[in-house]
Amino acid sequence: MAKHFQRELEKIKKSILTLGALVEDRVRLAIKSIDKRDADIAEQIIRMDYEIDEMEVDIEEECLKVLALHQPVAVDLRFLVSVIKINNDLERIADETVNIAHRVKTISKNRDFKFIFDYATMAEKASTMLKMSLDAMVRLDTDTAFKVCLMDDDVDVFVGRAYEQLKQSICAMPDDTGVLINMFLISRHIERIGDHATNIAEEVIYVTDGEIVRHGKF
Amino acid sequence: MAKHFQRELEKIKKSILTLGALVEDRVRLAIKSIDKRDADIAEQIIRMDYEIDEMEVDIEEECLKVLALHQPVAVDLRFLVSVIKINNDLERIADETVNIAHRVKTISKNRDFKFIFDYATMAEKASTMLKMSLDAMVRLDTDTAFKVCLMDDDVDVFVGRAYEQLKQSICAMPDDTGVLINMFLISRHIERIGDHATNIAEEVIYVTDGEIVRHGKF
Repeated sequence: MAKHFQRELEKIKKSILTLGALVEDRVRLAIKSIDKRDADIAEQIIRMDYEIDEMEVDIEEECLKVLALHQPVAVDLRFLVSVIKINNDLERIADETVNIAHRVKTISKNRDFKFIFDYATMAEKASTMLKMSLDAMVRLDTDTAFKVCLMDDDVDVFVGRAYEQLKQSICAMPDDTGVLINMFLISRHIERIGDHATNIAEEVIYVTDGEIVRHGKF
Repeated sequence: MAKHFQRELEKIKKSILTLGALVEDRVRLAIKSIDKRDADIAEQIIRMDYEIDEMEVDIEEECLKVLALHQPVAVDLRFLVSVIKINNDLERIADETVNIAHRVKTISKNRDFKFIFDYATMAEKASTMLKMSLDAMVRLDTDTAFKVCLMDDDVDVFVGRAYEQLKQSICAMPDDTGVLINMFLISRHIERIGDHATNIAEEVIYVTDGEIVRHGKF
């Protein structure tokens, strides 16, 4: 029974990592679609989102089954509940890539319009946060998880800058308001990807140390 | 043991409803702060947020304890996992009221500036969705929960309208871009309150019917 339970846990760990890798790919694809303002890539992200949705449902079902069958306690129970929450955050990161894709589709006609925000650096940061939070999860590495929590502020700084630049640009180019707002909203979606990566990192700390770091209490 | 377990479940149900009522109050307060552009109310919302944060942590701990001690299966297990997720959504709704409060503080100096979006109706709708989702949870009423899911589209329509109005207003009043963007972002925060209420409603349907309605599959 114990052996069977360990196998089930390993299977779930594998599943959540597979989902994590897939979501990482989507984030990379979303960044590429912004860079190239490529409506085709954007369309592809939207079309493939069902795969992530299905995986999320499957993983939650799997966790519930293991909870019911093996009735784990202590660390294992906490781990399974954390997987349910991380699963949810991963699916929502994928939703944000879909949101980005919709915005890219809208602005893809304005390829000549120069980007005024430093999306590349911001998106790279959020993407690194996601990667690190998943690494932290695999290795139950709280140091890396803490680093992710601290990086969240850096991403927020970019949103603040994007907002200031938006204000200035709109005043200078009121006719391009539509494109500019869409570009600004892309920065908000990237910010939310960073937020979800932080949630994942906080869960890792919680499952490892049993310490609640949510709500800025560290 | 069974009696003790039922008492624990009742206690958790009560706790999540208390949290729900408190979050409903915060949403009402946030709407009032927008209406009156009142920085004092906004400050109050920000200052009190720790209460919600603490309650969320307590409820999750409580659920984990009951899961470990009583090792429930079937409906009870599913209920407890749903409470953990609903708890999370409620806390995030409170976060959105804090976000609104920060924006209200920024625009509170521009009391004379006429609001161009119909915030009142939109906020009322999101607030009703939250109320209905909590009612649905208490009575495990899937009909009400389904209604909430359908209402989400109405809120999204308001955001679309706010966006169009923002574009027009910024072109007409480029000097007021800062206020206008903050007002637009308030509409996005209200939208997210509606999204979280929908998540709660979907959980209610899931725990009641065991049917996955997430990802628009109904």
